[in-house]
Amino acid sequence: MCEICGGDDKSHEHDTSGRAVIEVEQDVLARNNLLAARNRGYLAERGIFCLNMMSSPGAGKTTLLEKTIARLKEKIDIAVIEGDQQTDNDAQRIAAQGVPAFQINLGVGCHLEAESVYQALEHLNPHPGSLLFIENVGNLICPAMFDLGEAARVVITSVTEGDDKPLKYPHMFQMGEICLINKIDLLPYLHSDINVLRENLRKINPRQQIFEVSASSGAGLDDWCAWLLRKAAPGRQG
Amino acid sequence: MCEICGGDDKSHEHDTSGRAVIEVEQDVLARNNLLAARNRGYLAERGIFCLNMMSSPGAGKTTLLEKTIARLKEKIDIAVIEGDQQTDNDAQRIAAQGVPAFQINLGVGCHLEAESVYQALEHLNPHPGSLLFIENVGNLICPAMFDLGEAARVVITSVTEGDDKPLKYPHMFQMGEICLINKIDLLPYLHSDINVLRENLRKINPRQQIFEVSASSGAGLDDWCAWLLRKAAPGRQG
Repeated sequence: MCEICGGDDKSHEHDTSGRAVIEVEQDVLARNNLLAARNRGYLAERGIFCLNMMSSPGAGKTTLLEKTIARLKEKIDIAVIEGDQQTDNDAQRIAAQGVPAFQINLGVGCHLEAESVYQALEHLNPHPGSLLFIENVGNLICPAMFDLGEAARVVITSVTEGDDKPLKYPHMFQMGEICLINKIDLLPYLHSDINVLRENLRKINPRQQIFEVSASSGAGLDDWCAWLLRKAAPGRQG
Repeated sequence: MCEICGGDDKSHEHDTSGRAVIEVEQDVLARNNLLAARNRGYLAERGIFCLNMMSSPGAGKTTLLEKTIARLKEKIDIAVIEGDQQTDNDAQRIAAQGVPAFQINLGVGCHLEAESVYQALEHLNPHPGSLLFIENVGNLICPAMFDLGEAARVVITSVTEGDDKPLKYPHMFQMGEICLINKIDLLPYLHSDINVLRENLRKINPRQQIFEVSASSGAGLDDWCAWLLRKAAPGRQG
Protein backbone atom coordinates (compact mmCIF):
# COMPACT_ATOMS: atom_id res chain seq x y z
CA MET A 1 0.00 0.00 0.00
CA CYS A 2 1.24 3.49 -0.82
CA GLU A 3 2.10 5.36 2.40
CA ILE A 4 1.08 8.73 1.01
CA CYS A 5 -2.29 8.16 -0.61
CA GLY A 6 -3.20 4.73 0.76
CA GLY A 7 -3.70 3.36 -2.75
CA ASP A 8 -3.16 -0.34 -3.45
CA ASP A 9 -1.31 0.40 -6.68
CA LYS A 10 2.37 1.05 -5.93
CA SER A 11 3.29 1.92 -9.50
CA HIS A 12 3.12 5.67 -8.94
CA GLU A 13 4.99 8.42 -7.08
CA HIS A 14 4.03 11.67 -5.42
CA ASP A 15 5.51 15.10 -6.04
CA THR A 16 6.23 17.67 -3.29
CA SER A 17 2.55 18.70 -3.26
CA GLY A 18 1.44 15.10 -2.78
CA ARG A 19 -0.01 14.65 -6.25
CA ALA A 20 0.48 11.34 -8.01
CA VAL A 21 2.76 12.02 -10.97
CA ILE A 22 3.54 8.66 -12.55
CA GLU A 23 -0.09 7.74 -13.11
CA VAL A 24 -0.36 10.45 -15.73
CA GLU A 25 2.33 8.87 -17.87
CA GLN A 26 0.70 5.47 -17.42
CA ASP A 27 -2.66 6.92 -18.47
CA VAL A 28 -1.13 8.37 -21.63
CA LEU A 29 0.62 5.11 -22.55
CA ALA A 30 -2.39 2.93 -21.70
CA ARG A 31 -4.68 5.09 -23.85
CA ASN A 32 -2.16 5.00 -26.69
CA ASN A 33 -1.89 1.21 -26.43
CA LEU A 34 -5.66 0.86 -26.85
CA LEU A 35 -5.67 3.05 -29.94
CA ALA A 36 -2.65 1.20 -31.32
CA ALA A 37 -4.58 -2.06 -30.93
CA ARG A 38 -7.40 -0.52 -32.96
CA ASN A 39 -4.91 0.44 -35.70
CA ARG A 40 -3.46 -3.09 -35.65
CA GLY A 41 -6.92 -4.58 -36.16
CA TYR A 42 -7.71 -2.20 -39.01
CA LEU A 43 -4.40 -2.98 -40.73
CA ALA A 44 -4.77 -6.75 -40.23
CA GLU A 45 -8.25 -6.71 -41.70
CA ARG A 46 -6.97 -4.99 -44.83
CA GLY A 47 -3.85 -7.16 -45.07
CA ILE A 48 -1.62 -4.10 -44.89
CA PHE A 49 2.02 -4.57 -43.81
CA CYS A 50 2.95 -1.52 -41.75
CA LEU A 51 6.43 -0.47 -40.58
CA ASN A 52 7.18 2.26 -38.02
CA MET A 53 10.45 3.90 -39.16
CA MET A 54 12.37 5.62 -36.34
CA SER A 55 15.77 7.32 -36.10
CA SER A 56 17.68 10.43 -35.07
CA PRO A 57 17.02 13.54 -37.15
CA GLY A 58 18.94 13.35 -40.42
CA ALA A 59 19.63 9.61 -40.43
CA GLY A 60 18.19 9.48 -43.94
CA LYS A 61 14.69 8.07 -43.44
CA THR A 62 13.03 10.09 -46.20
CA THR A 63 15.75 9.46 -48.79
CA LEU A 64 15.61 5.78 -47.93
CA LEU A 65 11.82 5.77 -48.46
CA GLU A 66 12.18 7.62 -51.77
CA LYS A 67 14.64 5.00 -53.07
CA THR A 68 12.61 2.10 -51.67
CA ILE A 69 9.41 3.38 -53.27
CA ALA A 70 11.13 3.84 -56.65
CA ARG A 71 12.18 0.17 -56.57
CA LEU A 72 8.91 -1.31 -55.31
CA LYS A 73 6.00 0.81 -56.50
CA GLU A 74 5.44 -1.26 -59.66
CA LYS A 75 5.28 -4.42 -57.55
CA ILE A 76 3.08 -3.38 -54.63
CA ASP A 77 0.81 -0.50 -53.58
CA ILE A 78 2.59 1.79 -51.12
CA ALA A 79 1.41 4.62 -48.86
CA VAL A 80 3.31 6.76 -46.34
CA ILE A 81 2.39 8.64 -43.15
CA GLU A 82 4.90 11.39 -42.33
CA GLY A 83 5.48 12.82 -38.85
CA ASP A 84 7.42 16.07 -38.30
CA GLN A 85 7.34 19.01 -35.93
CA GLN A 86 6.90 21.42 -38.84
CA THR A 87 6.78 21.54 -42.69
CA ASP A 88 5.27 19.12 -45.19
CA ASN A 89 8.59 18.79 -47.02
CA ASP A 90 8.75 15.04 -46.47
CA ALA A 91 5.18 14.36 -47.63
CA GLN A 92 5.92 16.40 -50.76
CA ARG A 93 9.07 14.39 -51.44
CA ILE A 94 7.11 11.12 -51.08
CA ALA A 95 4.19 12.37 -53.21
CA ALA A 96 6.71 13.24 -55.94
CA GLN A 97 7.47 9.50 -56.10
CA GLY A 98 3.85 8.95 -57.14
CA VAL A 99 2.47 7.34 -53.98
CA PRO A 100 -0.05 8.76 -51.48
CA ALA A 101 1.43 10.52 -48.44
CA PHE A 102 -0.17 12.15 -45.41
CA GLN A 103 1.74 14.66 -43.26
CA ILE A 104 1.17 14.97 -39.51
CA ASN A 105 2.69 18.12 -37.96
CA LEU A 106 3.36 17.79 -34.24
CA GLY A 107 4.19 21.38 -33.28
CA VAL A 108 6.22 21.01 -30.06
CA GLY A 109 5.47 17.26 -29.94
CA CYS A 110 8.30 14.71 -29.94
CA HIS A 111 6.69 11.47 -31.21
CA LEU A 112 3.73 10.14 -33.21
CA GLU A 113 0.81 8.63 -31.28
CA ALA A 114 -1.66 5.96 -32.37
CA GLU A 115 -4.60 8.38 -32.47
CA SER A 116 -3.13 10.64 -35.15
CA VAL A 117 -2.05 7.58 -37.13
CA TYR A 118 -5.67 6.39 -37.11
CA GLN A 119 -6.81 9.76 -38.45
CA ALA A 120 -4.14 9.52 -41.13
CA LEU A 121 -5.36 6.02 -42.05
CA GLU A 122 -8.93 7.30 -42.46
CA HIS A 123 -7.63 10.03 -44.75
CA LEU A 124 -5.17 7.91 -46.77
CA ASN A 125 -7.51 4.91 -47.09
CA PRO A 126 -4.60 2.63 -48.11
CA HIS A 127 -5.30 -0.24 -50.52
CA PRO A 128 -5.87 -3.75 -49.16
CA GLY A 129 -2.65 -5.75 -49.37
CA SER A 130 -0.48 -2.65 -49.52
CA LEU A 131 2.75 -1.66 -47.82
CA LEU A 132 2.47 1.23 -45.37
CA PHE A 133 5.43 3.17 -43.99
CA ILE A 134 5.08 5.46 -41.00
CA GLU A 135 8.06 7.84 -40.90
CA ASN A 136 8.19 8.91 -37.26
CA VAL A 137 9.59 12.24 -36.09
CA GLY A 138 13.39 12.27 -35.86
CA ASN A 139 14.04 11.33 -32.23
CA LEU A 140 15.99 8.35 -30.90
CA ILE A 141 14.20 8.39 -27.54
CA CYS A 142 10.49 9.20 -27.16
CA PRO A 143 8.96 7.37 -30.19
CA ALA A 144 10.19 4.05 -28.73
CA MET A 145 7.53 4.25 -26.01
CA PHE A 146 4.53 4.69 -28.33
CA ASP A 147 3.06 1.69 -30.16
CA LEU A 148 1.35 2.84 -33.38
CA GLY A 149 -0.13 -0.53 -34.35
CA GLU A 150 2.69 -1.35 -36.77
CA ALA A 151 3.70 -4.91 -37.74
CA ALA A 152 7.34 -4.15 -36.86
CA ARG A 153 9.57 -1.29 -35.81
CA VAL A 154 12.58 -0.31 -37.90
CA VAL A 155 15.36 1.77 -36.34
CA ILE A 156 17.66 3.53 -38.79
CA THR A 157 21.12 4.54 -37.60
CA SER A 158 23.59 6.36 -39.78
CA VAL A 159 27.29 5.51 -39.57
CA THR A 160 27.97 9.27 -39.27
CA GLU A 161 26.33 9.17 -35.82
CA GLY A 162 29.14 6.99 -34.45
CA ASP A 163 29.27 3.35 -33.44
CA ASP A 164 28.23 3.80 -29.77
CA LYS A 165 24.58 4.83 -30.17
CA PRO A 166 22.99 1.43 -29.33
CA LEU A 167 24.69 1.52 -25.91
CA LYS A 168 23.72 5.12 -25.20
CA TYR A 169 20.09 4.89 -26.41
CA PRO A 170 19.29 1.23 -25.65
CA HIS A 171 15.49 1.48 -25.48
CA MET A 172 15.08 2.43 -29.13
CA PHE A 173 17.44 -0.31 -30.29
CA GLN A 174 15.71 -2.89 -28.05
CA MET A 175 12.33 -1.95 -29.56
CA GLY A 176 13.48 -2.13 -33.18
CA GLU A 177 13.10 -5.64 -34.59
CA ILE A 178 14.92 -4.43 -37.70
CA CYS A 179 17.91 -2.10 -37.91
CA LEU A 180 19.03 -0.33 -41.07
CA ILE A 181 22.62 0.89 -40.89
CA ASN A 182 22.55 3.77 -43.38
CA LYS A 183 25.12 5.97 -45.19
CA ILE A 184 27.69 3.16 -45.48
CA ASP A 185 29.12 4.98 -48.53
CA LEU A 186 30.61 7.50 -46.07
CA LEU A 187 32.54 4.91 -44.02
CA PRO A 188 35.90 5.65 -45.71
CA TYR A 189 35.74 9.24 -44.41
CA LEU A 190 34.75 8.47 -40.79
CA HIS A 191 36.37 7.20 -37.58
CA SER A 192 33.20 5.16 -36.99
CA ASP A 193 33.72 1.36 -37.11
CA ILE A 194 30.80 -0.62 -38.54
CA ASN A 195 31.98 -3.83 -36.85
CA VAL A 196 31.89 -2.12 -33.45
CA LEU A 197 28.43 -0.80 -34.31
CA ARG A 198 27.21 -4.32 -35.20
CA GLU A 199 28.74 -5.70 -31.99
CA ASN A 200 26.96 -3.00 -29.94
CA LEU A 201 23.66 -3.76 -31.70
CA ARG A 202 24.06 -7.47 -30.83
CA LYS A 203 24.70 -6.60 -27.16
CA ILE A 204 21.48 -4.59 -26.94
CA ASN A 205 19.25 -6.71 -29.18
CA PRO A 206 20.72 -10.10 -30.17
CA ARG A 207 17.75 -11.07 -32.37
CA GLN A 208 17.59 -7.88 -34.39
CA GLN A 209 17.71 -8.23 -38.17
CA ILE A 210 20.32 -5.89 -39.66
CA PHE A 211 20.61 -4.44 -43.18
CA GLU A 212 23.63 -2.34 -44.22
CA VAL A 213 22.53 0.20 -46.81
CA SER A 214 23.30 3.49 -48.49
CA ALA A 215 20.16 5.27 -49.63
CA SER A 216 22.45 7.63 -51.51
CA SER A 217 24.52 5.07 -53.48
CA GLY A 218 21.89 2.31 -53.53
CA ALA A 219 24.15 -0.23 -51.80
CA GLY A 220 22.20 -2.91 -49.91
CA LEU A 221 18.79 -1.75 -51.15
CA ASP A 222 18.18 -4.94 -53.16
CA ASP A 223 18.26 -7.08 -50.01
CA TRP A 224 16.10 -4.62 -48.07
CA CYS A 225 13.50 -4.41 -50.83
CA ALA A 226 13.42 -8.19 -51.29
CA TRP A 227 12.78 -8.58 -47.55
CA LEU A 228 9.98 -5.99 -47.69
CA LEU A 229 8.30 -7.77 -50.58
CA ARG A 230 8.54 -11.16 -48.84
CA LYS A 231 6.89 -9.69 -45.73
CA ALA A 232 4.25 -7.52 -47.40
CA ALA A 233 3.28 -9.73 -50.32
CA PRO A 234 4.34 -13.31 -49.61
CA GLY A 235 2.56 -14.58 -52.72
CA ARG A 236 4.13 -12.04 -55.08
CA GLN A 237 7.85 -12.26 -54.37
CA GLY A 238 10.50 -12.24 -57.06
CA MET B 1 -14.05 30.39 -18.14
CA CYS B 2 -13.50 26.72 -18.88
CA GLU B 3 -16.81 25.04 -19.76
CA ILE B 4 -15.83 21.70 -18.28
CA CYS B 5 -14.34 22.54 -14.86
CA GLY B 6 -15.45 26.16 -14.48
CA GLY B 7 -11.85 27.29 -13.87
CA ASP B 8 -10.78 30.82 -14.79
CA ASP B 9 -7.53 29.57 -16.30
CA LYS B 10 -8.09 28.58 -19.94
CA SER B 11 -4.56 27.26 -20.48
CA HIS B 12 -5.51 23.63 -19.94
CA GLU B 13 -7.52 20.86 -21.60
CA HIS B 14 -9.52 17.87 -20.41
CA ASP B 15 -9.14 14.25 -21.43
CA THR B 16 -12.07 11.88 -22.04
CA SER B 17 -12.39 11.28 -18.28
CA GLY B 18 -12.63 15.01 -17.61
CA ARG B 19 -9.20 15.34 -15.98
CA ALA B 20 -7.12 18.42 -16.72
CA VAL B 21 -4.09 17.22 -18.71
CA ILE B 22 -2.17 20.32 -19.74
CA GLU B 23 -1.73 21.61 -16.19
CA VAL B 24 0.61 18.72 -15.45
CA GLU B 25 3.02 19.78 -18.17
CA GLN B 26 2.83 23.35 -16.91
CA ASP B 27 3.58 22.19 -13.36
CA VAL B 28 6.66 20.30 -14.55
CA LEU B 29 7.96 23.26 -16.55
CA ALA B 30 7.19 25.80 -13.81
CA ARG B 31 9.01 23.70 -11.21
CA ASN B 32 11.96 23.27 -13.57
CA ASN B 33 12.07 27.03 -14.20
CA LEU B 34 12.36 27.70 -10.46
CA LEU B 35 15.21 25.24 -10.06
CA ALA B 36 16.91 26.67 -13.17
CA ALA B 37 16.74 30.12 -11.59
CA ARG B 38 18.48 28.68 -8.53
CA ASN B 39 21.23 27.24 -10.75
CA ARG B 40 21.57 30.60 -12.53
CA GLY B 41 22.07 32.36 -9.19
CA TYR B 42 24.64 29.81 -8.06
CA LEU B 43 26.59 30.12 -11.31
CA ALA B 44 26.42 33.93 -11.33
CA GLU B 45 27.72 34.10 -7.77
CA ARG B 46 30.73 31.97 -8.74
CA GLY B 47 31.31 33.82 -12.00
CA ILE B 48 30.94 30.57 -13.96
CA PHE B 49 30.10 30.79 -17.68
CA CYS B 50 27.80 27.85 -18.43
CA LEU B 51 26.69 26.58 -21.85
CA ASN B 52 23.92 24.05 -22.49
CA MET B 53 25.05 21.99 -25.53
CA MET B 54 22.17 20.36 -27.42
CA SER B 55 21.93 18.34 -30.66
CA SER B 56 20.71 15.18 -32.34
CA PRO B 57 22.46 11.97 -31.28
CA GLY B 58 25.80 11.68 -33.02
CA ALA B 59 26.21 15.33 -34.05
CA GLY B 60 29.65 15.27 -32.44
CA LYS B 61 29.10 17.05 -29.11
CA THR B 62 31.59 14.98 -27.12
CA THR B 63 34.35 15.09 -29.73
CA LEU B 64 33.84 18.85 -29.99
CA LEU B 65 34.19 19.17 -26.20
CA GLU B 66 37.33 17.00 -26.19
CA LYS B 67 38.98 19.22 -28.80
CA THR B 68 37.77 22.43 -27.14
CA ILE B 69 39.10 21.32 -23.75
CA ALA B 70 42.48 20.39 -25.22
CA ARG B 71 42.81 23.93 -26.62
CA LEU B 72 41.54 25.85 -23.57
CA LYS B 73 42.37 23.91 -20.42
CA GLU B 74 45.69 25.73 -19.86
CA LYS B 75 43.89 29.08 -20.12
CA ILE B 76 40.77 28.53 -18.00
CA ASP B 77 39.35 25.98 -15.54
CA ILE B 78 36.76 23.77 -17.25
CA ALA B 79 34.19 21.27 -15.94
CA VAL B 80 31.57 19.19 -17.77
CA ILE B 81 28.18 17.72 -16.86
CA GLU B 82 27.22 14.81 -19.15
CA GLY B 83 23.66 13.66 -19.80
CA ASP B 84 22.89 10.30 -21.45
CA GLN B 85 20.25 7.60 -21.23
CA GLN B 86 22.90 4.99 -20.40
CA THR B 87 26.71 4.53 -20.06
CA ASP B 88 29.35 6.87 -18.62
CA ASN B 89 31.37 6.70 -21.86
CA ASP B 90 31.17 10.45 -22.41
CA ALA B 91 32.24 11.38 -18.85
CA GLN B 92 35.18 9.00 -19.23
CA ARG B 93 36.21 10.64 -22.51
CA ILE B 94 36.05 14.08 -20.87
CA ALA B 95 37.92 12.95 -17.73
CA ALA B 96 40.66 11.58 -20.01
CA GLN B 97 41.22 15.20 -21.10
CA GLY B 98 42.14 16.01 -17.50
CA VAL B 99 39.07 18.01 -16.45
CA PRO B 100 36.34 17.07 -13.96
CA ALA B 101 33.21 15.46 -15.42
CA PHE B 102 29.97 14.26 -13.86
CA GLN B 103 27.68 11.80 -15.65
CA ILE B 104 23.91 11.88 -15.27
CA ASN B 105 22.12 8.77 -16.57
CA LEU B 106 18.49 9.35 -17.48
CA GLY B 107 17.23 5.80 -18.04
CA VAL B 108 14.17 6.27 -20.25
CA GLY B 109 14.39 10.08 -19.87
CA CYS B 110 14.75 12.33 -22.90
CA HIS B 111 16.24 15.58 -21.52
CA LEU B 112 18.22 17.00 -18.60
CA GLU B 113 16.32 18.96 -15.94
CA ALA B 114 17.52 21.75 -13.67
CA GLU B 115 17.27 19.63 -10.52
CA SER B 116 19.79 17.00 -11.61
CA VAL B 117 22.10 19.76 -12.87
CA TYR B 118 22.02 21.28 -9.37
CA GLN B 119 22.99 17.94 -7.86
CA ALA B 120 25.80 17.66 -10.39
CA LEU B 121 26.99 21.18 -9.45
CA GLU B 122 27.11 20.20 -5.77
CA HIS B 123 29.18 17.17 -6.66
CA LEU B 124 31.49 18.84 -9.20
CA ASN B 125 32.00 22.02 -7.14
CA PRO B 126 33.38 23.89 -10.19
CA HIS B 127 36.01 26.59 -9.62
CA PRO B 128 34.95 30.25 -9.46
CA GLY B 129 35.50 31.91 -12.83
CA SER B 130 35.47 28.60 -14.69
CA LEU B 131 33.83 27.46 -17.91
CA LEU B 132 31.10 24.85 -17.49
CA PHE B 133 29.69 22.77 -20.33
CA ILE B 134 26.47 20.80 -19.96
CA GLU B 135 26.29 18.16 -22.68
CA ASN B 136 22.57 17.42 -22.92
CA VAL B 137 21.18 14.08 -24.08
CA GLY B 138 21.12 13.70 -27.87
CA ASN B 139 17.63 14.91 -28.79
CA LEU B 140 16.68 17.78 -31.08
CA ILE B 141 13.25 18.23 -29.47
CA CYS B 142 12.62 17.82 -25.73
CA PRO B 143 15.73 19.51 -24.20
CA ALA B 144 14.67 22.81 -25.83
CA MET B 145 11.81 23.12 -23.31
CA PHE B 146 13.93 22.76 -20.16
CA ASP B 147 15.96 25.72 -18.87
CA LEU B 148 18.97 24.46 -16.91
CA GLY B 149 20.19 27.85 -15.67
CA GLU B 150 22.82 28.16 -18.41
CA ALA B 151 24.16 31.51 -19.71
CA ALA B 152 23.40 30.47 -23.29
CA ARG B 153 22.17 27.53 -25.32
CA VAL B 154 24.30 26.07 -28.10
CA VAL B 155 22.69 23.88 -30.76
CA ILE B 156 25.06 21.69 -32.74
CA THR B 157 23.94 20.47 -36.16
CA SER B 158 26.06 18.22 -38.31
CA VAL B 159 26.10 18.72 -42.08
CA THR B 160 25.48 14.97 -42.44
CA GLU B 161 21.97 15.53 -41.00
CA GLY B 162 20.94 17.54 -44.07
CA ASP B 163 20.30 21.24 -44.59
CA ASP B 164 16.57 21.23 -43.71
CA LYS B 165 16.69 20.52 -39.97
CA PRO B 166 16.11 24.13 -38.76
CA LEU B 167 12.77 24.18 -40.63
CA LYS B 168 11.69 20.76 -39.37
CA TYR B 169 12.74 21.23 -35.72
CA PRO B 170 12.30 25.00 -35.31
CA HIS B 171 11.92 25.14 -31.51
CA MET B 172 15.44 23.91 -30.81
CA PHE B 173 16.95 26.30 -33.35
CA GLN B 174 14.90 29.21 -31.99
CA MET B 175 16.14 28.49 -28.46
CA GLY B 176 19.81 28.22 -29.41
CA GLU B 177 21.53 31.61 -29.29
CA ILE B 178 24.60 29.95 -30.81
CA CYS B 179 24.74 27.32 -33.57
CA LEU B 180 27.75 25.18 -34.33
CA ILE B 181 27.63 23.63 -37.81
CA ASN B 182 29.84 20.56 -37.32
CA LYS B 183 31.54 17.98 -39.59
CA ILE B 184 32.21 20.51 -42.37
CA ASP B 185 35.15 18.27 -43.46
CA LEU B 186 32.51 15.84 -44.85
CA LEU B 187 30.82 18.42 -47.12
CA PRO B 188 32.59 17.20 -50.30
CA TYR B 189 30.94 13.77 -49.89
CA LEU B 190 27.39 14.97 -49.17
CA HIS B 191 24.40 16.36 -51.08
CA SER B 192 23.85 18.73 -48.15
CA ASP B 193 24.34 22.45 -49.00
CA ILE B 194 25.81 24.56 -46.18
CA ASN B 195 24.50 27.78 -47.75
CA VAL B 196 20.95 26.39 -47.70
CA LEU B 197 21.52 25.35 -44.09
CA ARG B 198 22.69 28.87 -43.14
CA GLU B 199 19.70 30.37 -44.97
CA ASN B 200 17.31 28.07 -43.07
CA LEU B 201 18.99 28.98 -39.76
CA ARG B 202 18.49 32.68 -40.56
CA LYS B 203 14.80 32.10 -41.32
CA ILE B 204 14.23 30.44 -37.94
CA ASN B 205 16.56 32.56 -35.79
CA PRO B 206 17.92 35.70 -37.51
CA ARG B 207 20.07 36.75 -34.53
CA GLN B 208 21.76 33.40 -33.97
CA GLN B 209 25.57 33.41 -33.91
CA ILE B 210 26.94 30.69 -36.20
CA PHE B 211 30.31 28.91 -36.17
CA GLU B 212 31.29 26.45 -38.91
CA VAL B 213 33.57 23.79 -37.44
CA SER B 214 34.96 20.31 -37.80
CA ALA B 215 35.79 18.75 -34.45
CA SER B 216 37.55 16.02 -36.42
CA SER B 217 39.85 18.17 -38.61
CA GLY B 218 40.04 21.16 -36.24
CA ALA B 219 38.65 23.61 -38.82
CA GLY B 220 36.95 26.62 -37.22
CA LEU B 221 37.90 25.69 -33.66
CA ASP B 222 40.18 28.74 -33.23
CA ASP B 223 37.24 31.14 -33.69
CA TRP B 224 34.98 29.08 -31.44
CA CYS B 225 37.60 28.86 -28.66
CA ALA B 226 38.41 32.59 -28.90
CA TRP B 227 34.70 33.36 -28.53
CA LEU B 228 34.45 31.06 -25.50
CA LEU B 229 37.40 32.74 -23.82
CA ARG B 230 36.01 36.22 -24.46
CA LYS B 231 32.71 35.22 -22.86
CA ALA B 232 34.03 33.16 -19.96
CA ALA B 233 37.12 35.17 -19.01
CA PRO B 234 36.80 38.68 -20.45
CA GLY B 235 39.95 39.84 -18.63
CA ARG B 236 42.10 36.94 -19.84
CA GLN B 237 41.58 36.84 -23.59
CA GLY B 238 44.37 36.41 -26.11
